[in-house]
Amino acid sequence: MLSKNTLKFIKSLQQKKFRKQENAFFVEGSKNVTELLDSDFHVTHLLYTEKFEEENPQLVLGFKGEAYLVTQKVLESAGSFQTNDSALAVAKIKQNAIPSDLEQSLVLALDDVRDPGNLGTIIRIADWYGIKNIICSEESADCYNPKVLNSSMGSFSRVNILYTDLYGFLEKSKLPVFGAFLEGENIYKAKLPTAAVILMGNESNGISERIGSLVNHKITIPRFGLAESLNVAIATAIICDNFKRF
Amino acid sequence: MLSKNTLKFIKSLQQKKFRKQENAFFVEGSKNVTELLDSDFHVTHLLYTEKFEEENPQLVLGFKGEAYLVTQKVLESAGSFQTNDSALAVAKIKQNAIPSDLEQSLVLALDDVRDPGNLGTIIRIADWYGIKNIICSEESADCYNPKVLNSSMGSFSRVNILYTDLYGFLEKSKLPVFGAFLEGENIYKAKLPTAAVILMGNESNGISERIGSLVNHKITIPRFGLAESLNVAIATAIICDNFKRF
Repeated sequence: MLSKNTLKFIKSLQQKKFRKQENAFFVEGSKNVTELLDSDFHVTHLLYTEKFEEENPQLVLGFKGEAYLVTQKVLESAGSFQTNDSALAVAKIKQNAIPSDLEQSLVLALDDVRDPGNLGTIIRIADWYGIKNIICSEESADCYNPKVLNSSMGSFSRVNILYTDLYGFLEKSKLPVFGAFLEGENIYKAKLPTAAVILMGNESNGISERIGSLVNHKITIPRFGLAESLNVAIATAIICDNFKRF
Repeated sequence: MLSKNTLKFIKSLQQKKFRKQENAFFVEGSKNVTELLDSDFHVTHLLYTEKFEEENPQLVLGFKGEAYLVTQKVLESAGSFQTNDSALAVAKIKQNAIPSDLEQSLVLALDDVRDPGNLGTIIRIADWYGIKNIICSEESADCYNPKVLNSSMGSFSRVNILYTDLYGFLEKSKLPVFGAFLEGENIYKAKLPTAAVILMGNESNGISERIGSLVNHKITIPRFGLAESLNVAIATAIICDNFKRF
């Protein structure tokens, strides 16, 4: 039976402080949980309803960690969803190591993207365009925040998200850095390589001056109307599409 | 002085029922309010702080409707923002008439886009790409919902958003209808005209079968990774970018 202490432990993971302390996070809902169980994350706890078990008998049967058959009410009290009639799973946070094969691919770099919904959406976009790595500044939203995981729609399990000193990373990287600015080269005309860093900035302030000093190519999405700017996740999608279309 | 009744009237406009009954809506925050005052909307009430007045003396001075100097606390109690230290304005809802010059332009059509944040973001995208008209099915999110207006970042004042029987509109329209599907022609290879309807579907179900029967060209954004789908606002942005780039 699910103990009060375990429930308390799961609830605590809604806060970054406790995720860091416990080196763990949780995901909710059928899609996220099944994606997590299919991934290489180390899943320690599974809370599931009868409905989830009926729909995923093999996943529940094959699960090696602590498994608890619970009611919808318990799921909703443990997690962040208002409605959850399927499952919630706890997993260990992955080690934060930058892969060595970055130099041959497109990499997304986020300079202080703060909104969890934007980060989750960017993870989903990276997954759509086959971009395997996102390098985030230390101040960016935490990718294990339930809101990030939920808006990634399961894509968090297929994209490496790494937090580091972004200046140091870009300084050392051999990849050309393409930064998204409101005044830069027209992205339709720019020569876009198959291996590069695509750098996106903060929601309000864009790319900071310090990080911007490491940009090799300033690029811009042409504007045809009067909106002052685009949301950072929207701009990321359009830029990725322009990089991948050739 | 701002009466209790006026405050109650403004608060009521958070609900669609009262917006319809009063034929009015409100916007909040400095950017939205200044864009509204600069637009051709008929603005009836302006609630503003000293700070807003200092930053926009001409706008306040030139305002012809009911104007009230209020505290931040009053603004926050009247509107939907947790923090609002600038202004709130009430305007009349525009007449819902489809312009006659649609046939020479790109038009966005939304088949039941329900999420206010998505609709607001789509309005901002339309404004960026110079698309003047968005035709929504009757069941789509209400564009005068505060969440829609806020996420449009002022673009609501430059884009016509019309609600109609979408089937009837598409059936009568002479424009070719390009519908976004997960299985369609590769959008990088499709011939995309300068005048067309770009049809986007519901967040969960995509384009309905009935509306889909009126699509002339099924198009798809190529996928390079494993995400199952893209958010509807993200897909709208990428498709608009592909239409406008040539």
